[in-house]
Amino acid sequence: MINSPLNRRLRMALCGGGGAGFIGKVHRTAATLDGRTDLVAGAFSSNLDRSRESAVAFGVDPDRAFTDFQALLDDELARPENERIDFVSIATPNFLHFPMAKAALEAGFNVICDKPMTTRLADAQELARLVEQTGAVFALTHNYTGYPLVRQAREMIASGELGEIRAVRASYVQGWMRGVDPAAPAARGMWKDDPEKNGPGATVGDVGTHAFNLVRYITGLQPAEVLAKLMTYSEGRQLDDYGHAIVRCQNDALIMITVSQVTHGRLNDLSIEIDGEKASLSWRQEEPNTLTLRRTGKAQQIFDRHPGADFMNESGIAACRLPAGHPEAFFEAFANVYTAAFDDMVKRATGEAHDACNTVYPNVYDGVEGVRFIEQCVASSQNDNTWQPMC
Amino acid sequence: MINSPLNRRLRMALCGGGGAGFIGKVHRTAATLDGRTDLVAGAFSSNLDRSRESAVAFGVDPDRAFTDFQALLDDELARPENERIDFVSIATPNFLHFPMAKAALEAGFNVICDKPMTTRLADAQELARLVEQTGAVFALTHNYTGYPLVRQAREMIASGELGEIRAVRASYVQGWMRGVDPAAPAARGMWKDDPEKNGPGATVGDVGTHAFNLVRYITGLQPAEVLAKLMTYSEGRQLDDYGHAIVRCQNDALIMITVSQVTHGRLNDLSIEIDGEKASLSWRQEEPNTLTLRRTGKAQQIFDRHPGADFMNESGIAACRLPAGHPEAFFEAFANVYTAAFDDMVKRATGEAHDACNTVYPNVYDGVEGVRFIEQCVASSQNDNTWQPMC
Amino acid sequence: MINSPLNRRLRMALCGGGGAGFIGKVHRTAATLDGRTDLVAGAFSSNLDRSRESAVAFGVDPDRAFTDFQALLDDELARPENERIDFVSIATPNFLHFPMAKAALEAGFNVICDKPMTTRLADAQELARLVEQTGAVFALTHNYTGYPLVRQAREMIASGELGEIRAVRASYVQGWMRGVDPAAPAARGMWKDDPEKNGPGATVGDVGTHAFNLVRYITGLQPAEVLAKLMTYSEGRQLDDYGHAIVRCQNDALIMITVSQVTHGRLNDLSIEIDGEKASLSWRQEEPNTLTLRRTGKAQQIFDRHPGADFMNESGIAACRLPAGHPEAFFEAFANVYTAAFDDMVKRATGEAHDACNTVYPNVYDGVEGVRFIEQCVASSQNDNTWQPMC
Amino acid sequence: MINSPLNRRLRMALCGGGGAGFIGKVHRTAATLDGRTDLVAGAFSSNLDRSRESAVAFGVDPDRAFTDFQALLDDELARPENERIDFVSIATPNFLHFPMAKAALEAGFNVICDKPMTTRLADAQELARLVEQTGAVFALTHNYTGYPLVRQAREMIASGELGEIRAVRASYVQGWMRGVDPAAPAARGMWKDDPEKNGPGATVGDVGTHAFNLVRYITGLQPAEVLAKLMTYSEGRQLDDYGHAIVRCQNDALIMITVSQVTHGRLNDLSIEIDGEKASLSWRQEEPNTLTLRRTGKAQQIFDRHPGADFMNESGIAACRLPAGHPEAFFEAFANVYTAAFDDMVKRATGEAHDACNTVYPNVYDGVEGVRFIEQCVASSQNDNTWQPMC
Repeated sequence: MINSPLNRRLRMALCGGGGAGFIGKVHRTAATLDGRTDLVAGAFSSNLDRSRESAVAFGVDPDRAFTDFQALLDDELARPENERIDFVSIATPNFLHFPMAKAALEAGFNVICDKPMTTRLADAQELARLVEQTGAVFALTHNYTGYPLVRQAREMIASGELGEIRAVRASYVQGWMRGVDPAAPAARGMWKDDPEKNGPGATVGDVGTHAFNLVRYITGLQPAEVLAKLMTYSEGRQLDDYGHAIVRCQNDALIMITVSQVTHGRLNDLSIEIDGEKASLSWRQEEPNTLTLRRTGKAQQIFDRHPGADFMNESGIAACRLPAGHPEAFFEAFANVYTAAFDDMVKRATGEAHDACNTVYPNVYDGVEGVRFIEQCVASSQNDNTWQPMC
Repeated sequence: MINSPLNRRLRMALCGGGGAGFIGKVHRTAATLDGRTDLVAGAFSSNLDRSRESAVAFGVDPDRAFTDFQALLDDELARPENERIDFVSIATPNFLHFPMAKAALEAGFNVICDKPMTTRLADAQELARLVEQTGAVFALTHNYTGYPLVRQAREMIASGELGEIRAVRASYVQGWMRGVDPAAPAARGMWKDDPEKNGPGATVGDVGTHAFNLVRYITGLQPAEVLAKLMTYSEGRQLDDYGHAIVRCQNDALIMITVSQVTHGRLNDLSIEIDGEKASLSWRQEEPNTLTLRRTGKAQQIFDRHPGADFMNESGIAACRLPAGHPEAFFEAFANVYTAAFDDMVKRATGEAHDACNTVYPNVYDGVEGVRFIEQCVASSQNDNTWQPMC
Repeated sequence: MINSPLNRRLRMALCGGGGAGFIGKVHRTAATLDGRTDLVAGAFSSNLDRSRESAVAFGVDPDRAFTDFQALLDDELARPENERIDFVSIATPNFLHFPMAKAALEAGFNVICDKPMTTRLADAQELARLVEQTGAVFALTHNYTGYPLVRQAREMIASGELGEIRAVRASYVQGWMRGVDPAAPAARGMWKDDPEKNGPGATVGDVGTHAFNLVRYITGLQPAEVLAKLMTYSEGRQLDDYGHAIVRCQNDALIMITVSQVTHGRLNDLSIEIDGEKASLSWRQEEPNTLTLRRTGKAQQIFDRHPGADFMNESGIAACRLPAGHPEAFFEAFANVYTAAFDDMVKRATGEAHDACNTVYPNVYDGVEGVRFIEQCVASSQNDNTWQPMC
Repeated sequence: MINSPLNRRLRMALCGGGGAGFIGKVHRTAATLDGRTDLVAGAFSSNLDRSRESAVAFGVDPDRAFTDFQALLDDELARPENERIDFVSIATPNFLHFPMAKAALEAGFNVICDKPMTTRLADAQELARLVEQTGAVFALTHNYTGYPLVRQAREMIASGELGEIRAVRASYVQGWMRGVDPAAPAARGMWKDDPEKNGPGATVGDVGTHAFNLVRYITGLQPAEVLAKLMTYSEGRQLDDYGHAIVRCQNDALIMITVSQVTHGRLNDLSIEIDGEKASLSWRQEEPNTLTLRRTGKAQQIFDRHPGADFMNESGIAACRLPAGHPEAFFEAFANVYTAAFDDMVKRATGEAHDACNTVYPNVYDGVEGVRFIEQCVASSQNDNTWQPMC
């Protein structure tokens, strides 16, 4: 739906995500779910034929398909403003996030970037500076923040319904690595075991940053220091595939983050339980349409994703597309990150101010924090599991 | 994605579904989820301003927005073929399905129609004749058939994994009517209590046909006769809001259909359990990403919607868009009905034959059967709960 | 615990239940769980050696072990009052319930009897007359009524928390018959397919009366008439193994009872959902420690079996032995039926009045109703599924 | 049932557990559930009247009720052997476990003792020496090991079905402390915040040792060192009420133990998930009748507590009292610890050897390990969360 003062759809370029790959389809589907954007350009593949084939398949003019990201940007800048893209979505392996995001920001475009934001903290910090300089909209696709009941939980906590938060347990457990032969060149995400391309932490980066960000997003707790124990259980791997991180927060709350990609049969099991002084909350990504509130001595309350119910708050309702009982899921949550970023892109395009620090979507500062989380978990794990500063 | 020998997206018109209404948004989102169609025209509202506003909001040229469905068809027929719509989606109150579908078919267009298909059996049968005459693609949006694990179940049963099916229990239970004041003109779906606009059965039509169709779709059981007991528990209503129907099948299997729209707090609880000679299966729409298989004396098996797992069959895999653990839900299932119909529309447009009787999507014959189910449930209920023929 | 004005434990005789059989162990364990009774006599088996062996194993004086029930009664009557049993528990095949219960009542003893109470309605009615004549305590082990949250639900409804009850769906689904060879003489419960020994309805009697009684116990709804469709799906069986019964109540509420013993992999799945004007309730025997209350537009409330919680009522609390989170289950529920009957036995023994019509435990009138339910379900099923009176 | 070469029931004394208290009732009920023991003596209370009242209520001769444990032992030793107790159950606050167990062992009796075994490691080690010297049976009531599916899991792992165990996550989360006023003298378990009476770790001892023991019992993993972070979130408390402990095992497996008694609304939520090279297993105490086995790429398998199913092993079957679908719970699991200890007591009484190191029930060495776990968790937490040896 074109619900925008711009009176037009936004124009999107996609980096990576060609062919039938998972994450490219997710970005395309999520970005266009509400009819607010058109995919018009892309560097879909490092092979020109494949990039152009993808363009055709995606309904994009093949002349706007490139292999080189800078060429794409140059081409865009040469186009009249009413054709030019509004934003770039970066869905490439980790090590390409930084150069692409940097170039896109410098060219004046808004950026939607996969996580972790960069492979090094210094690069992440440079992106933050660039966002500040350019005023561009920068969203990081910590997509699980887009679930309606995650936003509901965030507002509940911000409004004090849980009292002070004392402890959080978040865990992100997968098992796909049990089915991967690490020696096979075609194995899923081989670059994820290459520190140069992936960054220093594998599972702690791939899923750990999601869990950490989810805690931060929902609770607003400020981390003080982290202690981690990372392990590599899959034979032949260099990087971690399992671990625990304990984050001590500035108010002395504890956050326990557990990550695994080697737990047989677990799929994409991100879950969180939050202990407040007044109540506790729990939520699980694989059954995202319910949120449980508990108070000692009271009935457990199951909150359905239910825009018409008396318990729903503004943030929760705003993130729903369907009535209760009509389950919403991964694509819709992912699209909610896009939608929130689109709102700020429209503001920027129409000259209206947007608050880059306090966004509905995870932003560049969340990206910096995520990269710091990875680096300090690795540092703690390599230094006898000692505490490392997180601020 | 334009994965089509047509080498272009299909062109869609939408009847009804203007404004912020639920079902219109569902049709628009589902139809466009995979990038295979563009909404280009519509009779979105019976008020011209609102119809045009909707057009703008949906990115449709306002000159192709109408209030009168026949005007829309005339306009389309006057356009060059390369602009003309391929199909019409009908998302209006029940009584408009028949005249619109009839006109669309007579004008040569394909039709996607909401359920129940018509308010009278004779009208349903006329549509079936028209589909046969025109060779048009006709899909009925019994959207729950689009869930990957529903299609998985269907193929499992067709291939004999459950043995002969002996009994099925399907239940579709909602509670929203407990929050509706039947005297309030703005109450949701007021036309649903008007037999002229809705047809003779309300809840048995609104949700009962979904449950009945789901049983038929998954099991292929052939109904012989039905006995029903319908009730009206909401004060001030004319039509049913609760009931049970027992269907005896030709192989003497029993299907029990339970429907309610007056069960406090139930949302959209469509569930099914199927007893076969070799195993039983159960599935529930509100948690659509798992299917349970049971065999006496064996471990229960939970099948995740998991395109990479060893238990998935072709039908199940083909209906997945995401890897396991990344939940798919209502929109994706709804889109799968569209997708399957698109495949046949492309065949028709390119002159390839399609089998109108044996479709992946619910078709016009399912529509006839659904309307017969409603009429015979009402007849049984009004005649001392005696058996009424279903074939 | 001897919490009794009698200042002693009650003395129990057991009929049937010798050896390692399931139901005898259940009765012994349940009866003695709270230390309020001692098993002192029995007709454990029709084989004297086996009856005596059982006695020894159960800590009973072998001289008080018999094969013939009347001999047991005679022996008891010959003993001094301070040795004599207080009650007889009857855990035999159905056809023995009536002669044993009759003899026990006539001899002045209290009776705990398995269900269904008798194989014929006339016998059941005779037992009711005998109970009235003798003033004996008579409890029927519809053991599922002993679950704390079942009693909680009963009091909630009695006190009006759900408003008028409009509809109930109860279902009792098992699958063990899928593993039984009906031709094998040792198959579990062979007498259950013999109408002489079992009564006219098999599954409708075995599990259907439990489901029906549970509805009656919790809701107090008064049945008016019943329509049933019973089926036999297991090869070689005479009696029913599957079916549905619709009970129309005097207030026009509908009760749907579904029974099966042929659903692959289902264990002992008794569940109930109750629709009231103000709220709905659901509970499931296999997860008996939670009860769910729903109200349209509100959060679902999960009531744990939690004697310390603010939502628990007197009946619920009184039936708990353990704090919340320490699950209680089948034995404890069964024991609660005994416990309640013990309270009335103590009253009777001390000359205090007890109200035989309005008991915490299922009583002889529930037994009459259960046998009527079986007979009328069979009659309806044999008469073209017509309505049969239930009052 | 007297299934014993002794040809009589065992005789039990109970220390503590008078009145209506929770843990005394649990011990009495569990010990007598199978009719293998009689409670014949006790030091039920430090108040003589109350101790005698308890005796009467429990069916015990009041002359065998004491306030002083040594007096009880002296009285027993003075009795003829055929009256004398076989064992003592100790259900007192922690600090009394050691002197009572020591005295009972020295007097030649078997001991069933609550956990944690002692308040100091040295005392625990002394008990181990005494057990070795006396040859007495000593069982520690880590009652959760008595669940049938826990024993099933243990045998599955011992037989290699999961492959090498790489990681375990166990968590024991309660919330009752949220409802306790720490200043109120009558608050539940006040002695639990007194290091003299409770030992140095509160929640880590109260529930943490259960979780740790459960991991050890099921997996057999050998701990090498532990790192812990304990917190006190309840105002006014001295000791811990929340924490995490990471145990590194000798095979480099990680065990994460999470404990809380301050999580609003959580009841008694002990859960465990075990990652093996070949499969993972998960189980939860509040729903103890199912166990889940997962393998990447396969259907999840839900194992019901089902003595007749093909997946059950000997250990699992032996621990069941009821057929599947008839839930068993806390009392039955607790009784299984007693039952296993009874088997060894009978062996000892009849002069048959029993293996004190390798027992079905948690034994004195588990007790030593549990106290070491507490002490080293506290030490780590007080020393900047450094690793402390566990062997």
